[in-house]
Amino acid sequence: MFVLVNLKTYPCDPVAVAEAVRDVNESTDARVAVAPQAAHLERVAETGAETWAQHVDPIDYGSNTGHTLAESVAEAGAVGTLINHSEQRLKLADVDGAVEAAERAGLETVVCANNPAQIGAAAALGPDAVAVEPPELIGTGTPVSQADPDIVEDAVEAAQAVDADVSVLCGAGISTGDDVVAAGDLGSEGVLLASGVAKADDPTAALEDLVAPL
Amino acid sequence: MFVLVNLKTYPCDPVAVAEAVRDVNESTDARVAVAPQAAHLERVAETGAETWAQHVDPIDYGSNTGHTLAESVAEAGAVGTLINHSEQRLKLADVDGAVEAAERAGLETVVCANNPAQIGAAAALGPDAVAVEPPELIGTGTPVSQADPDIVEDAVEAAQAVDADVSVLCGAGISTGDDVVAAGDLGSEGVLLASGVAKADDPTAALEDLVAPL
Amino acid sequence: MFVLVNLKTYPCDPVAVAEAVRDVNESTDARVAVAPQAAHLERVAETGAETWAQHVDPIDYGSNTGHTLAESVAEAGAVGTLINHSEQRLKLADVDGAVEAAERAGLETVVCANNPAQIGAAAALGPDAVAVEPPELIGTGTPVSQADPDIVEDAVEAAQAVDADVSVLCGAGISTGDDVVAAGDLGSEGVLLASGVAKADDPTAALEDLVAPL
Amino acid sequence: MFVLVNLKTYPCDPVAVAEAVRDVNESTDARVAVAPQAAHLERVAETGAETWAQHVDPIDYGSNTGHTLAESVAEAGAVGTLINHSEQRLKLADVDGAVEAAERAGLETVVCANNPAQIGAAAALGPDAVAVEPPELIGTGTPVSQADPDIVEDAVEAAQAVDADVSVLCGAGISTGDDVVAAGDLGSEGVLLASGVAKADDPTAALEDLVAPL
Repeated sequence: MFVLVNLKTYPCDPVAVAEAVRDVNESTDARVAVAPQAAHLERVAETGAETWAQHVDPIDYGSNTGHTLAESVAEAGAVGTLINHSEQRLKLADVDGAVEAAERAGLETVVCANNPAQIGAAAALGPDAVAVEPPELIGTGTPVSQADPDIVEDAVEAAQAVDADVSVLCGAGISTGDDVVAAGDLGSEGVLLASGVAKADDPTAALEDLVAPL
Repeated sequence: MFVLVNLKTYPCDPVAVAEAVRDVNESTDARVAVAPQAAHLERVAETGAETWAQHVDPIDYGSNTGHTLAESVAEAGAVGTLINHSEQRLKLADVDGAVEAAERAGLETVVCANNPAQIGAAAALGPDAVAVEPPELIGTGTPVSQADPDIVEDAVEAAQAVDADVSVLCGAGISTGDDVVAAGDLGSEGVLLASGVAKADDPTAALEDLVAPL
Repeated sequence: MFVLVNLKTYPCDPVAVAEAVRDVNESTDARVAVAPQAAHLERVAETGAETWAQHVDPIDYGSNTGHTLAESVAEAGAVGTLINHSEQRLKLADVDGAVEAAERAGLETVVCANNPAQIGAAAALGPDAVAVEPPELIGTGTPVSQADPDIVEDAVEAAQAVDADVSVLCGAGISTGDDVVAAGDLGSEGVLLASGVAKADDPTAALEDLVAPL
Repeated sequence: MFVLVNLKTYPCDPVAVAEAVRDVNESTDARVAVAPQAAHLERVAETGAETWAQHVDPIDYGSNTGHTLAESVAEAGAVGTLINHSEQRLKLADVDGAVEAAERAGLETVVCANNPAQIGAAAALGPDAVAVEPPELIGTGTPVSQADPDIVEDAVEAAQAVDADVSVLCGAGISTGDDVVAAGDLGSEGVLLASGVAKADDPTAALEDLVAPL
């Protein structure tokens, strides 16, 4: 299982969470990574944790102000990027452009979407993975694998129908190891986490609990 | 073949073009329709021409100001709508929401996209048809069927791979009957037209030329 | 006082509300107008009610699909338009462009904004009026004149400091004649209304109650 | 004069340009600063150059993915930020929110705008400075101070009329020391530069030429 911890713009210490991610990644079979803000990428990558960007723009080198260039986040140490997170929804053409930009820079790509139909659409754009996150469950603490197990299975089916090479992750409300196991049982190859780890008093312990049943 | 004339915000007489659309539709085997601005829908529909909206928003009845509600354009006489035209690009989630809104209101749907990958994505959202329009060819007078025939064939293949029930149209630069025939030979079931008819001195003659070889 | 009834995309009969607006306008000293959806402009204007658009885009005649051209809403019978309503927020440059487009088409302009600072900014763009609507009060039934009287006075002051010729309206939660009077006492020259009239069983009675104390 | 070098997403070495900025700042009376991408802020700030962000989002700590938090860019070493650059145009309400976020984080603010009317609007939002950059001149090499001197003087007048404490910068096409002097003569207290320095073979020499006549 792939466990990606999205730090959003939480008031957490990105380096401390990254160190927890690095340590837990080394001590388990799960692959654990962390996605800090762009301004924190360098110091997070320096911890040795697998580092992801939260977003890249559908642009190339050139006259773009305030944008996130895929090459720059790669150079800062990111090896992958989220695209089209529900808090950063992009135009269809720009999801396509962002996937292309990320691949050009050698970044692994996870395109987020709200439901199985959009997951199929996202898979058609050729990312490495897609992630289904029902917006109404984000931040609720109710895991998608429990609140809406059909949506995960339907997302897996929708992605497979379009491109069998695209992995499916799921997110929203995942906070325990049982949630992660349940997500895997529904066909998900990974999970997106956020507050459960980023806001934990002890991120290492929180992550260890999450991966323990794997 | 389906021939949809997009009036954009051109300074044309929408009723005069609509009458030409109606007349040519009756005199040929092609299906010819017209897409005026929202504020012109009623008077255009009253001509008896098949009338389409240029856009609907991913909304339902409620607190939305300045939006285009699918039910309202249907009530004004539209029987279908373009979605995600390259001049009105939507977020992926909103293309999905607009298709859903249009279907709820009984509107036929054509989702536009720039390239075969996006056409596959659009097809995954379940519209009646998709339309490939390379942005760089729009308004050039160079027909996509001539400038980039592969893109039309690839779009047909991409849509078919995702959903065999989704028709494929093409647009950009179509201005002669030969262009329409060429589009059909590449697997397209229709074309999007704009300035070639909307700005013609004699829209009826322009349309007759377009459908003559069909 | 100017009373503008925004029909949003409510499931109301726009013609029935327009007739109420027309009748009450004729029977009182207040100026009462109605803002239907673009697709309803023509039939609403035909009632003889003063008709406004809910939005115009910062565009001119040309290649724009799914946009609202100021000239088209004017031609359909609108004499004014809202711009930058909190449900249709525009980029700063586009508020400027929309005011310019509306003026080019002879439309009266009301630019909406959330707070006094933004009201000052809106006034600097040269509209005929600005309207302050705290987003958190919209649709609450708690009138801005009661919940936050300072915001109305501060908005009047901010607008006056920038351009003394710009009128100030207010909105959000206005539903009784007392609310309208209170708005006027705070320096507002008009009010934006929505559900209180548009969703009333008897829009004429609702409007008569609103303007009775004036 | 304040000289701010915007590195955009140019393929330049941000550290090399930052060192040039630092050195020239120390050797002249002008105040010279550099605005790299968010992912480069830390390493640029470590050079000792005055470092600015290119953009901050109108957000606070919380659930925001892929956004630029003012506190994070400040913590990475930025002391100021551009807002609403013509390549990153924001909604009016979001320009207001971004100014507020930047001030909360202790960042100096420069709000960009296209013309004098928008400059007046930007000034009403209370930033430290505004910058007028006619979009049609950006990247042309024709300095705004020569192509359109009136726009600079009108911008100064528009800003002063709204808030006399707001400084006015100008940009677009500035590439020589004479351009900088001309901008100052028109009432501008600084200039925005980009490719002229960022793409120069010798950024130090380019900057020295620019500030030599001051």
